[in-house]
Amino acid sequence: NMVKVAVVGGEGIGPEVTAQSQRILNWFAAKRGVPMTLREAQYGIIPYLATGKVLPDDTVEAMEEADAIVWGATGGPETKEVPAAARKAGSLLGLRSKYDLYANLRPIVANPALADSAPLKAHVLKGVDFVIIRELTSGIYFGEPRGIEMLADGQRRGFNTEQYTTNQIRRVARSAFELARTRRSKVCSVDKANVLETSVLWREEVIALHREEFSDVDLTHLYVDNAAMQIVREPAQFDVMVTGNIFGDILSDCAAMASGSLGMLPSASLGPVDKFGRRKALYEPVHGSAPDIAGKGIANPLGSILSIAMMLRMTLNRPEDADLLEKAVDAALATGARTADIAEPGAKKLSTTEMGDAVLSALEKI
Amino acid sequence: NMVKVAVVGGEGIGPEVTAQSQRILNWFAAKRGVPMTLREAQYGIIPYLATGKVLPDDTVEAMEEADAIVWGATGGPETKEVPAAARKAGSLLGLRSKYDLYANLRPIVANPALADSAPLKAHVLKGVDFVIIRELTSGIYFGEPRGIEMLADGQRRGFNTEQYTTNQIRRVARSAFELARTRRSKVCSVDKANVLETSVLWREEVIALHREEFSDVDLTHLYVDNAAMQIVREPAQFDVMVTGNIFGDILSDCAAMASGSLGMLPSASLGPVDKFGRRKALYEPVHGSAPDIAGKGIANPLGSILSIAMMLRMTLNRPEDADLLEKAVDAALATGARTADIAEPGAKKLSTTEMGDAVLSALEKI
Ligand SMILES: CC(C)[C@H](C(=O)O)[C@@H](O)C(=O)O
Ligand SMILES: CC(C)[C@H](C(=O)O)[C@@H](O)C(=O)O
Repeated sequence: NMVKVAVVGGEGIGPEVTAQSQRILNWFAAKRGVPMTLREAQYGIIPYLATGKVLPDDTVEAMEEADAIVWGATGGPETKEVPAAARKAGSLLGLRSKYDLYANLRPIVANPALADSAPLKAHVLKGVDFVIIRELTSGIYFGEPRGIEMLADGQRRGFNTEQYTTNQIRRVARSAFELARTRRSKVCSVDKANVLETSVLWREEVIALHREEFSDVDLTHLYVDNAAMQIVREPAQFDVMVTGNIFGDILSDCAAMASGSLGMLPSASLGPVDKFGRRKALYEPVHGSAPDIAGKGIANPLGSILSIAMMLRMTLNRPEDADLLEKAVDAALATGARTADIAEPGAKKLSTTEMGDAVLSALEKI
Repeated sequence: NMVKVAVVGGEGIGPEVTAQSQRILNWFAAKRGVPMTLREAQYGIIPYLATGKVLPDDTVEAMEEADAIVWGATGGPETKEVPAAARKAGSLLGLRSKYDLYANLRPIVANPALADSAPLKAHVLKGVDFVIIRELTSGIYFGEPRGIEMLADGQRRGFNTEQYTTNQIRRVARSAFELARTRRSKVCSVDKANVLETSVLWREEVIALHREEFSDVDLTHLYVDNAAMQIVREPAQFDVMVTGNIFGDILSDCAAMASGSLGMLPSASLGPVDKFGRRKALYEPVHGSAPDIAGKGIANPLGSILSIAMMLRMTLNRPEDADLLEKAVDAALATGARTADIAEPGAKKLSTTEMGDAVLSALEKI
């Protein structure tokens, strides 16, 4: 029973970092017999010039049949060449919505090897190991009505709708409680219930679900402004944090610095479980396309590689292999392997491919 | 021509910290001849029990006639005793709206004396001196429609409206450009224009105003997620940051850690200039009511005291006196004066009043 994986490098630094993940995937298939088939597919300016679509039919088909999508990044410098409508038709937000990838998991783990290059003090980073679960297919990203209108007095008015329903809140809260049970059994739900009705409902539904099914889990609540401060002040206090789409977007970037570098962060976006027990998932680094360094071969591939570890654990159900890959990344870092974003001034900087080499050679040695 | 100041301590630690600010105000009136009259007024459970209003008529009158309001905090542990409707009728959000206090200035200055207790490394804190200008009377805080509704299938749905008009964007952007001209001439505007139409309009209007009237100022743009990360990664890069209501709420708490402690942060909320050239302003610490330490006499009064310095500068037009007060705070910190929130483990902790004493004695010495 082969698991189908679609590999889409995309734009900017996406193809460069994804190429390293692909080497890692090949290693696990060959050396550890992980049962998967890989299908590469294109996204962006190249298929656009050939087909008029940034997301061509072949890529759609590959993702459609896939159990897991390994995604690079979108929005390279070439973005300007593609008309907005064509880009929108194949956007990442569209994909999240199409496959209903509502639970976005963003683990934040501070690697002691990177303490020197992090902006936070070493004692603050100590023990940092938490997961932000961001609701990914609702909230203000998708709420209607939205737009820009002309007012009678000649002004313009921009408007968007933040919105959540009972089921949308409960299913992502459920993911958080279930994940917490496999960890330190703590969930912190983040909202702005002192101002927003959407957040009042969010908090009520989280509390109700907790009482009905998860009262063994320790549940706390923070307002989003306080959460942003606590993530910087004392990030080690968190285990699982669950929040809505826009708050999760902001807080996960804020938390990135508690891991040393944005380049280190993986993510998984999970859809609903279907009647055959399958769950479509998209794995991608948290970083974006980084147009300023695209094509230079210096991007950090570890965010992408660590999202392969998440795939091994969550889609392939191979926890030992996931652990193995994470240990290999730790081992590579412990021997001093550094791309530019995590290098101390004056230290040797590896290229993207050399960092891939370092992880592969660590895998061989473990 | 006396400037009228209303002093409202409010709830939680509000009255404790405001009492120290009042001593400072008295000192400036007596020793430096600052022309102001102070009128104390009550807010919260005490007037509620006497009059049925958290914001009684006498307080409304004091604020109505005031040029500047010195505000403590709302939301003490006693909040539960006051019915939601009575509380809402006198809320801080209501005041912001009533006096149209649209420009909320939150300076973030890293004090070298506090580098040891901050979570950020000393080299990251070096040179941090910026101001976040948060739009305070529009956005998702006030947008309609809003509410919680029942859906046909028995679910509930919460909804809120994020919204900005041309004029709302331009007037707060104008405050930012004008402030930048008195500083290092850099404005960073923060939005989420890759997702929200409200932000698309925000960016367009900021760019248009910049082109029309402020092209001498250096203008940059960041997405809010990236801004949250940059504030932790390299806060010294910013001079003036301008953003909407909810983004400003989150980012200013995130930035609090770049100053050592939330307890250190002052704020000013400014209304429109009227036909007599007057501009109503509310000065308050960024911290809230801190119910856990209320009544213990250990809260840090420096956030409140530093907002008096903002008042001396902005309402009273006494820049030398503002500088004097800021220098006195620096001097007190330099001699080791610390309340619990900024004390190193094992160091002597001053009470709220003792910190007030330390600032007053520094004022006498300068
Ligand atoms: C590129 C952007 C639309 C996206 C988001 O806001 O979700 C990104 O910031 C992310 O976090 O994946
Ligand atoms: C208390 C709350 C309504 C308020 C806000 O969100 O504006 C506070 O967080 C602030 O920043 O002044």
